[in-house]
Amino acid sequence: MTRPPTVDIREVGPRDGLQVEAPVDPGDRVRLVEALVEAGVSHVEACSFVSPTAVPAMAGAGEVMAKLSRVSGVTYTALVPNRKGAEMALEAGVDELTVTVSASPAYSEKNVRMSIDESVAAVEEVCVLAGTVPVDAVISCAFGSPYEGDIAPERAAALGDRLVDAGAVSLTYADTTGMATPRRVAELLDETGTEVGLHLHDTRGTALVNAYSALERGVRRFDTSVGGLGGSPFAAGAAGNLATEDFVALLDDLGVVSGIDLERLLAASALAAELVGHPLPSRVAVAGPRDRLAPE
Amino acid sequence: MTRPPTVDIREVGPRDGLQVEAPVDPGDRVRLVEALVEAGVSHVEACSFVSPTAVPAMAGAGEVMAKLSRVSGVTYTALVPNRKGAEMALEAGVDELTVTVSASPAYSEKNVRMSIDESVAAVEEVCVLAGTVPVDAVISCAFGSPYEGDIAPERAAALGDRLVDAGAVSLTYADTTGMATPRRVAELLDETGTEVGLHLHDTRGTALVNAYSALERGVRRFDTSVGGLGGSPFAAGAAGNLATEDFVALLDDLGVVSGIDLERLLAASALAAELVGHPLPSRVAVAGPRDRLAPE
Repeated sequence: MTRPPTVDIREVGPRDGLQVEAPVDPGDRVRLVEALVEAGVSHVEACSFVSPTAVPAMAGAGEVMAKLSRVSGVTYTALVPNRKGAEMALEAGVDELTVTVSASPAYSEKNVRMSIDESVAAVEEVCVLAGTVPVDAVISCAFGSPYEGDIAPERAAALGDRLVDAGAVSLTYADTTGMATPRRVAELLDETGTEVGLHLHDTRGTALVNAYSALERGVRRFDTSVGGLGGSPFAAGAAGNLATEDFVALLDDLGVVSGIDLERLLAASALAAELVGHPLPSRVAVAGPRDRLAPE
Repeated sequence: MTRPPTVDIREVGPRDGLQVEAPVDPGDRVRLVEALVEAGVSHVEACSFVSPTAVPAMAGAGEVMAKLSRVSGVTYTALVPNRKGAEMALEAGVDELTVTVSASPAYSEKNVRMSIDESVAAVEEVCVLAGTVPVDAVISCAFGSPYEGDIAPERAAALGDRLVDAGAVSLTYADTTGMATPRRVAELLDETGTEVGLHLHDTRGTALVNAYSALERGVRRFDTSVGGLGGSPFAAGAAGNLATEDFVALLDDLGVVSGIDLERLLAASALAAELVGHPLPSRVAVAGPRDRLAPE
């Protein structure tokens, strides 16, 4: 057992979570980010600098970054799809850039209309521009896609190597359509080592068990989304991301430090549900922490 | 690692799943049990012989048992609350009886209006009556209840010992209100050994991760419910049981044999959803198996 004493949770609800929802006003997105930081979140993907035509829910990223009361010690991240997005994000003073490249050629073509080679080239451009601002490369469909099925761990890891060569300082492997399992997580980690991040989706109800099995193998970086917000526009009926509160509840029980206070996080989750206007998938958000007793 | 090569899944959807739903006709309950057996289920809790006034959804248990086309090699189980229920179940020719005793005194009083001592005495009566028909004692709230919080593993295990003394041939520890975690499962197994069954609920999204952690410690008996049907009438917003299809998908991926065919199980799950008239919580039921590709 190599379970780490602490983990770095990157909260992606304000970006990956909200991007598939009806647009939420930038001021309200600022409130959500601030509520998350108040709960102890120290790493947050706050927005993405993408075309507002392509992703209307992410319009106003510059406004979000400008209005945020930045807290010292918190890393504010933005997703950027290309050089233009990176310029805007750097102008807005983000602490980290995330870029995505799909390990699935078919998904890449359908999702961003680029080949994997073109995506890697775009990452290289962003990394040059970023200078000392770190770039985390997120490898989507790292476990496979519904277009070609499983993707071999060697292939996903090889793409990771190319992205490091392109200038990425860290890598995050994403289970975009819920095809990871504890076995496949272990196989990928055998190729990549445990100094990677994981971004897990709950499409098949496996987000938490995959996170747990990665944790037990020593992985220390996880993307999660408040309330389990999010999903993939390309996977019908897809459940969202690993819910931050479900993971924090597990970590608390194991004595692994995340720095996040579960009760305050549940307040942020309630705000998120209010902003999107529907209940969120997180089970802990519904049932409460396991030590919450019945009313007398 | 002591992961077993095979597991015994006891499908509890037709009983624990349906008992909280609007009543389904006995003939349709027979169809569901038969669909599950066609999918490879070899152990099924088909009904319960309880008062139809107390649990209207379980009325007609005798009719269910009489109409079933029994398949050789399949264990058909019924839950019985007391001597009278046991008499009816034995008359109907069940292969196994299940009885429940709560590890939580407060839950026991509220749920069945009996003390734990009274429940144990009722189990003893049932076991005497059962003769050579095996009785499995299910210990509900084995991890705690919302009335008193955590229940110490030593206490749950001590209750198990009493039930074996009372004549139970096997024990199943139930996480009735979703308070188990991988840590607490391990702590209980340290007390009980791994020759026990687990009955896990997904109230806090932990059913699968708890099952996985128990499996990795060598547990071979699990209760699951098709589609994740079920829940606790005492836990507001409670999600259901561990979904059979979600667990079978995990087992298949790990190479652990359950004897259940996932595609046929999904057909049974679709029937269950049709019978209760609403979608079921299972994520695999919605998204399909992980190797299902997108249409061309």
